[in-house]
Amino acid sequence: MANTATTNVLEQPASRTTAPRTAIAGIGGYAGGELARLLLHHPRFRETAPTFLGRAGESDTTVKLHLEDIHPQLAVAGNQTHEILPFTWERIVDAGTEVLFLATPHEQSREWVPEAIERGIKVIDLSGAWRLQHSSNRVVYKLTDANTEQAALLQSEAVYGCPELHRDKIRNARLVANPGCYATSIILALAPFIQAGLVDLDHGIICDAKSGVSGAGKAPTSKTHFMYAADNLSAYAVFGHRHTGELLEQLHITSDQIQFTPHLLPIPRGILSTIYVRLKNKIESATITEVLHDFYQHSPLVRLRSTPHLPEIQHVVRTNFCDLGFALAPDGKRLILVSCLDNLLKGASGQAVQNLNLMCGWKEEEGLL
Amino acid sequence: MANTATTNVLEQPASRTTAPRTAIAGIGGYAGGELARLLLHHPRFRETAPTFLGRAGESDTTVKLHLEDIHPQLAVAGNQTHEILPFTWERIVDAGTEVLFLATPHEQSREWVPEAIERGIKVIDLSGAWRLQHSSNRVVYKLTDANTEQAALLQSEAVYGCPELHRDKIRNARLVANPGCYATSIILALAPFIQAGLVDLDHGIICDAKSGVSGAGKAPTSKTHFMYAADNLSAYAVFGHRHTGELLEQLHITSDQIQFTPHLLPIPRGILSTIYVRLKNKIESATITEVLHDFYQHSPLVRLRSTPHLPEIQHVVRTNFCDLGFALAPDGKRLILVSCLDNLLKGASGQAVQNLNLMCGWKEEEGLL
Amino acid sequence: MANTATTNVLEQPASRTTAPRTAIAGIGGYAGGELARLLLHHPRFRETAPTFLGRAGESDTTVKLHLEDIHPQLAVAGNQTHEILPFTWERIVDAGTEVLFLATPHEQSREWVPEAIERGIKVIDLSGAWRLQHSSNRVVYKLTDANTEQAALLQSEAVYGCPELHRDKIRNARLVANPGCYATSIILALAPFIQAGLVDLDHGIICDAKSGVSGAGKAPTSKTHFMYAADNLSAYAVFGHRHTGELLEQLHITSDQIQFTPHLLPIPRGILSTIYVRLKNKIESATITEVLHDFYQHSPLVRLRSTPHLPEIQHVVRTNFCDLGFALAPDGKRLILVSCLDNLLKGASGQAVQNLNLMCGWKEEEGLL
Amino acid sequence: MANTATTNVLEQPASRTTAPRTAIAGIGGYAGGELARLLLHHPRFRETAPTFLGRAGESDTTVKLHLEDIHPQLAVAGNQTHEILPFTWERIVDAGTEVLFLATPHEQSREWVPEAIERGIKVIDLSGAWRLQHSSNRVVYKLTDANTEQAALLQSEAVYGCPELHRDKIRNARLVANPGCYATSIILALAPFIQAGLVDLDHGIICDAKSGVSGAGKAPTSKTHFMYAADNLSAYAVFGHRHTGELLEQLHITSDQIQFTPHLLPIPRGILSTIYVRLKNKIESATITEVLHDFYQHSPLVRLRSTPHLPEIQHVVRTNFCDLGFALAPDGKRLILVSCLDNLLKGASGQAVQNLNLMCGWKEEEGLL
Repeated sequence: MANTATTNVLEQPASRTTAPRTAIAGIGGYAGGELARLLLHHPRFRETAPTFLGRAGESDTTVKLHLEDIHPQLAVAGNQTHEILPFTWERIVDAGTEVLFLATPHEQSREWVPEAIERGIKVIDLSGAWRLQHSSNRVVYKLTDANTEQAALLQSEAVYGCPELHRDKIRNARLVANPGCYATSIILALAPFIQAGLVDLDHGIICDAKSGVSGAGKAPTSKTHFMYAADNLSAYAVFGHRHTGELLEQLHITSDQIQFTPHLLPIPRGILSTIYVRLKNKIESATITEVLHDFYQHSPLVRLRSTPHLPEIQHVVRTNFCDLGFALAPDGKRLILVSCLDNLLKGASGQAVQNLNLMCGWKEEEGLL
Repeated sequence: MANTATTNVLEQPASRTTAPRTAIAGIGGYAGGELARLLLHHPRFRETAPTFLGRAGESDTTVKLHLEDIHPQLAVAGNQTHEILPFTWERIVDAGTEVLFLATPHEQSREWVPEAIERGIKVIDLSGAWRLQHSSNRVVYKLTDANTEQAALLQSEAVYGCPELHRDKIRNARLVANPGCYATSIILALAPFIQAGLVDLDHGIICDAKSGVSGAGKAPTSKTHFMYAADNLSAYAVFGHRHTGELLEQLHITSDQIQFTPHLLPIPRGILSTIYVRLKNKIESATITEVLHDFYQHSPLVRLRSTPHLPEIQHVVRTNFCDLGFALAPDGKRLILVSCLDNLLKGASGQAVQNLNLMCGWKEEEGLL
Repeated sequence: MANTATTNVLEQPASRTTAPRTAIAGIGGYAGGELARLLLHHPRFRETAPTFLGRAGESDTTVKLHLEDIHPQLAVAGNQTHEILPFTWERIVDAGTEVLFLATPHEQSREWVPEAIERGIKVIDLSGAWRLQHSSNRVVYKLTDANTEQAALLQSEAVYGCPELHRDKIRNARLVANPGCYATSIILALAPFIQAGLVDLDHGIICDAKSGVSGAGKAPTSKTHFMYAADNLSAYAVFGHRHTGELLEQLHITSDQIQFTPHLLPIPRGILSTIYVRLKNKIESATITEVLHDFYQHSPLVRLRSTPHLPEIQHVVRTNFCDLGFALAPDGKRLILVSCLDNLLKGASGQAVQNLNLMCGWKEEEGLL
Repeated sequence: MANTATTNVLEQPASRTTAPRTAIAGIGGYAGGELARLLLHHPRFRETAPTFLGRAGESDTTVKLHLEDIHPQLAVAGNQTHEILPFTWERIVDAGTEVLFLATPHEQSREWVPEAIERGIKVIDLSGAWRLQHSSNRVVYKLTDANTEQAALLQSEAVYGCPELHRDKIRNARLVANPGCYATSIILALAPFIQAGLVDLDHGIICDAKSGVSGAGKAPTSKTHFMYAADNLSAYAVFGHRHTGELLEQLHITSDQIQFTPHLLPIPRGILSTIYVRLKNKIESATITEVLHDFYQHSPLVRLRSTPHLPEIQHVVRTNFCDLGFALAPDGKRLILVSCLDNLLKGASGQAVQNLNLMCGWKEEEGLL
């Protein structure tokens, strides 16, 4: 948590005048589709559309596939949209790709990132493959490295793509590991208070989080069946969700100090995290407001809701914002933080574009408001 | 359409005093689960629970599977529920099965029914395998018969299990082909008017039908994915839905005389059919009411909604009723019929139990109100 | 928490052979509708339907209102359903009412209960008016008593209608205060562990609860508008929900020892409570199972889900069960309890009928399975 | 239906170089909120935000209301959003308003429009007050005019704001009557075929339309209650919906020639209209495609879906497109048109901005893709 007001505003590197050539691999999924939408509407990318790549082998040369075939909402009137090409390094290199987005499975990202970096291509990886520095936090991922040593080096260089915490590092990164959706919502809520030393960590933090179904991905399974998810609510992965490691590393806490319980909501998109914190000392409500305000005064994509209002999912869906709010018990020690975001935007593709903006020296919110 | 008030009330065969031994094959699906629920709560089956059978090979002998493992909502406090056994003829015979419910795929039903009948077991088949007398109407089904001649004989004997039209035949049937959900909703709305000769058939009937997702079955597919179905509406199988044949045969009309367009609703269960009819002659609203009332006066599971009220899905969901209502244009010739039912109950398992009741000589609504 | 296995099974008072005459006031709301449905299908009430009463003045004598006019799903084929009468004491007395259900606003219940009791009529009150012994817990209710002394006496006599805790008292009660929906879900989860002395109360219990929209009542408001609730999730009444008092009194804890945060789910019915408990000592998972099993072995309407399965809303909706499950952290000290029920059934009308059954000396689950 | 390719591309009036000063009255509703969002993100309005006006008396001077107070999703980080002012002509004039959007009730629009025009302010009215030339089609509206003669003159001058039909008139209009949402979806589907003389009008056209709940407005009513709309589908206003008049006037047909049946879908936004047409002569599928393509080749906000694909609500929600598709019966005479749009965008506010763009001489799709 290197965030301070000063690092946030200083050291702005020279802004690129032309947009980089980008490519999106894994265009078929929800995150891929949102990335396509964001970049096609981004003012800097009016004339340089990304290259759209399916997963390796997802398309073949006999049938041409276009963006609208997989994401009909992105169709334009009158003409076919951009072609989707099967993933090959040759295509990526031929297109002059400078930044590659990977909206691919963890294993795939673990395999492709080293090659991309070696070829001089920067990567923003939306999978969980490169988010965790400590392998002990990676036990829930099945990851195999062709070259373990090289992978370890690359891992240590990877920047966790949470702009509100790591703006400067992101600006100069070759490899950005875009955060998990749940993790983003929880880290943004807790970081200001943990950094300020206000939280009684040993008491234990409870994160009761709820997410819409898009977080479970596009593959049809028994859990993403409409009949399972609709009119239902269920807890899952209790004491074992793979985003937990991100919380530990980014908040510098131990697994004893936090409990994270995800639930599946019967809605397409959106996350609401209700976070229960015990403060070390009695505190005024105004102080809580101040801590949040100071921490996020230079963060255009974090909105603070004024007490007694609390964030709600409907206010963030289809936006790139994370909304934060809180309620403080009369005793001044029991604090409830509520954090909302759209899991496909600020929790995935929106944050990826925010990172791209930083890497280009542009305003981080460009194309995202 | 042999329905007349007299045939509906007369010829009641002797009522069974003891419940027959029943078995349900295909217990894993939605229809199977609802059948189990209905029979377990049926007053006649308090002491003779059905035998629950998975599809062949769905379970094995090493792990015992119980009803609650697949349908947790059917769990009881304290004890395990009934065991689910893999389908074998031996088990069915050993259990003394007299009536077999098949909630199985069309192909499977086409294969199993002849053997069941041969073994002296009556069948209520919830698939589409035996509903259609004319093979030309069966083109959308992939059906193969081991013994074509035997199959043709059996087909001609099969009774279409719509009690409101075929009560008497059902009472004495060996093989009941339980109607399709869409077909039930449309046939019950149209039959009174077509039978009364009021409909200008050559003008063409439009059936614009909308169904909840459970109608698409339990298998996870891209169309049953929550992200596809939620907040969406889509037409499908336009000019080619497999229930069309049932409409033609049961209403004695041709494919030129009816258009049936199904839509997928973002709800778990329920069908609403909006049916547009041109009458031969100008008619009064009171006559429409009378036609419906006469036709359904002895039908305890058809409810008529009084003008200006129209049926709504919420009123029939989780009930075994079909609700009917109508609106008549000021010209007295353009009639709109609205028909609602729960596709898993009156459109499937509830109707199957209604048929069972008739076959046992009981009141058709027993255990269904 | 007087629950012990012995008191639960002993002292069964003589069972009534005939059903009592009942009346339901407040038939127009969701709880009233569900009560009507349950009693009309209850095997003991086949021949003695309840008297259905609107709120005072809800109907007038010029237009006769029937059950189906307000609750169309309760319509029967062919005939009008039961008439709804405006509430008057004369009607209640004339009908020979022995048990009066009040599904009315708090204020109304506070006013009517003393008069009913005075007239020798037992009451099962579904409002929050009589649930709390300590007036300090009642601050969120606006209640005015005509006769304060009489009200205080009656209050001290009122039995909190949670059968799993107070079976014996309920059997002999004149006034049963039917529990709140959230409170039921939380009390049933926590009582076994608090009674067994396993919970570190001073650490604080977190109850993160989520409820469907029917819990907010039938009055159209900006919060029950489809556009507000659909695709949304919001926390509300943080640190101030009126069910908190029930938790304190029934679990014998203080407001410092529990935090209860309700959320509004975008579904019609169902509650899921995720409850975070710190245990005093390290414990085995098997012990947790045993505690639950012992506590609920004689409770037919509480279902225990075996680890690693957890309760889900879809399994309890439209049932009268409360489902309980848990997950225990590897450290054996952090326990998560998950509790689900249908807020209109086990959380309201189903529990009211369960209480009626006890008051009549019948099996508590009669008509509820 | 003056639409021809030539009028669509020629006669482009001189484009404004500066954006006009605009004001939005009725900012509190759904349409008002979407208008605000669209204009705040419109590239031409970066520096000239609209004036936001509540309904008359909706706000007072003691409490300042901001956009985010009513539409929290429009909040920005760090600062308060634009102030909402109570509607007064003084404010409108002081702000130098050149174009006034009215997202107000019919009655209100009928009253305010003459005054605005008299003050030299152009109006885009989103209500139904000025859409219909023939008073016989206006019977379902309660409209009173202060000056009947003036109102009649103004009415005859009002342009029906369907750009795909009336581009040229809109460019020069003082008063644009923005079309109804249902009407837009149906008119855009039918116009090409009726204008081409292909439709057997006397056979009768059936429009079975389905809309999300936002179409019913923001006022909480029993029909917009979540418990009413969720998991439900209902037909309403059969043979009497107020959009019918727009169909008659814009398509030059009589009420005998069309039936329009709206249904309430359990989703927040989106309309799907299934339209059944009998063609005069047998026709090839390719001809249908050609008719649509020719009609819409210069319409950037109408997307044609290629057979066998049909429009779906999820593809148009949150876009400003109307999607059109069709299925043709094997007989070549029975045509089904499917039309989808977002009722708040192409069916209301998006179309209003499209009209503004035309009035300013800009590309009609500017700020809408």
